[in-house]
Amino acid sequence: MIIHNDKLVLTSNGNRPSYHEITDEVRRIVKESHVKNGIVVVSTPHTTCSVFFEEYSHDRNYNGDEYLQVDLDNVLEAIVPTTKSDRQYYHPGPEHTKFAEDISKTDTATEGTIMVPNRHSLLNTDAHIRGSLLGSSETFIIQNGIIQIGKVGYVYFVDWDHTRSRNRQCLVEVLGE
Amino acid sequence: MIIHNDKLVLTSNGNRPSYHEITDEVRRIVKESHVKNGIVVVSTPHTTCSVFFEEYSHDRNYNGDEYLQVDLDNVLEAIVPTTKSDRQYYHPGPEHTKFAEDISKTDTATEGTIMVPNRHSLLNTDAHIRGSLLGSSETFIIQNGIIQIGKVGYVYFVDWDHTRSRNRQCLVEVLGE
Amino acid sequence: MIIHNDKLVLTSNGNRPSYHEITDEVRRIVKESHVKNGIVVVSTPHTTCSVFFEEYSHDRNYNGDEYLQVDLDNVLEAIVPTTKSDRQYYHPGPEHTKFAEDISKTDTATEGTIMVPNRHSLLNTDAHIRGSLLGSSETFIIQNGIIQIGKVGYVYFVDWDHTRSRNRQCLVEVLGE
Repeated sequence: MIIHNDKLVLTSNGNRPSYHEITDEVRRIVKESHVKNGIVVVSTPHTTCSVFFEEYSHDRNYNGDEYLQVDLDNVLEAIVPTTKSDRQYYHPGPEHTKFAEDISKTDTATEGTIMVPNRHSLLNTDAHIRGSLLGSSETFIIQNGIIQIGKVGYVYFVDWDHTRSRNRQCLVEVLGE
Repeated sequence: MIIHNDKLVLTSNGNRPSYHEITDEVRRIVKESHVKNGIVVVSTPHTTCSVFFEEYSHDRNYNGDEYLQVDLDNVLEAIVPTTKSDRQYYHPGPEHTKFAEDISKTDTATEGTIMVPNRHSLLNTDAHIRGSLLGSSETFIIQNGIIQIGKVGYVYFVDWDHTRSRNRQCLVEVLGE
Repeated sequence: MIIHNDKLVLTSNGNRPSYHEITDEVRRIVKESHVKNGIVVVSTPHTTCSVFFEEYSHDRNYNGDEYLQVDLDNVLEAIVPTTKSDRQYYHPGPEHTKFAEDISKTDTATEGTIMVPNRHSLLNTDAHIRGSLLGSSETFIIQNGIIQIGKVGYVYFVDWDHTRSRNRQCLVEVLGE
């Protein structure tokens, strides 16, 4: 049995959802694992990020986002609008805001996973809800050393949080033999 | 190879979605498994429940629900409204209603998974659709005995069914070495 | 350790989402694997398909779709409307359209995974977005040789693409011991 762990570090743009097409990196990690049959789990440890499976859309808008990403953003914007101000959503409430401020004072090794005192960065409720809807991981099947995602399937990591630029981790575990 | 199975039994409130924050229990089961590297799958055998990954929101409303849960409920209510009466959704139809009534007469060992004759309990179509949208399981990566969910990541089990209080099962399997 | 791979081939109807209830087939594959404890991953290699867990709804509409499927279709139609024409969504753009036309000329062994020159078949953006929302795989727990989906839980494979009839693959991997 082989269990092979790796991770990618991906930088978010800080003003809109940040999509990263990571198919080649996942293929490389599968190859380095020497797993011939098994699974590869792609996962985020951050609650405002998701992993999903989609086609590559070729065309890009002004910002460099693929058209299918723009379409997904528009669908989600209609049901989970971008947070513009406090009280638009219930979260963050006063206790959570205090928690975020306190933790930022005492913990300096955040690795991008803990909130910072910038109050604007707490206005990411939409990113939390979108992360719950899209899910925090995806599991793919490996056969004969090949990840089974077809010829036009791609793996994406997305940071829904539009409030700040930072490095995010994408975890990849290959499990099999 | 270690495969370690356990389960949690969680009681639903019977009048709104029931959220259970189960992070400590999942950590305990991972520890008891002695798996150092691998995965932990958290899964529901019930079609009106989901497992998802989210931040802990600290503030709670009148009912005791965390603010992010209230926000998620509001988003879902807008797209999958709570069932108030028959014919609001196609489901349940007459055949399904008859099935539910028949099975409740013949099967006494339901373990909370099979419908009861109370007709109101069949008005849970929204819970079924929400369960499909959020998904029935989540897979987390374990490295060095630690579930990789960051410092502010939490695991939630939710019963979307608002029609009755009952015990629900949350299955946890740890797989690795 | 046992890793057992199999696949199902499912034919899409070509005019609306195609749902396939595959619970018995998944149970058969689990049995044939001889895995007593572990997981079964059900996955699509196609980006316009999903795997999900739901109750069997008994009643069916005019088209033969189960009522819960009709309800799910209606919920999704409201947030991700069926594509009727180009420019309804950003995707497909001119580069993607050219890619689809080029690949269809050079690749004859598509196995149903690559686009064909019929321009109508590119109007499936809704299917891509729905696939992202519902997810490309589901992982179920196996204990004592039994897939843990309760007495009324069923596994569904759905092709969201309404533009053409074709064969789709559903991959099933059983992993455990």
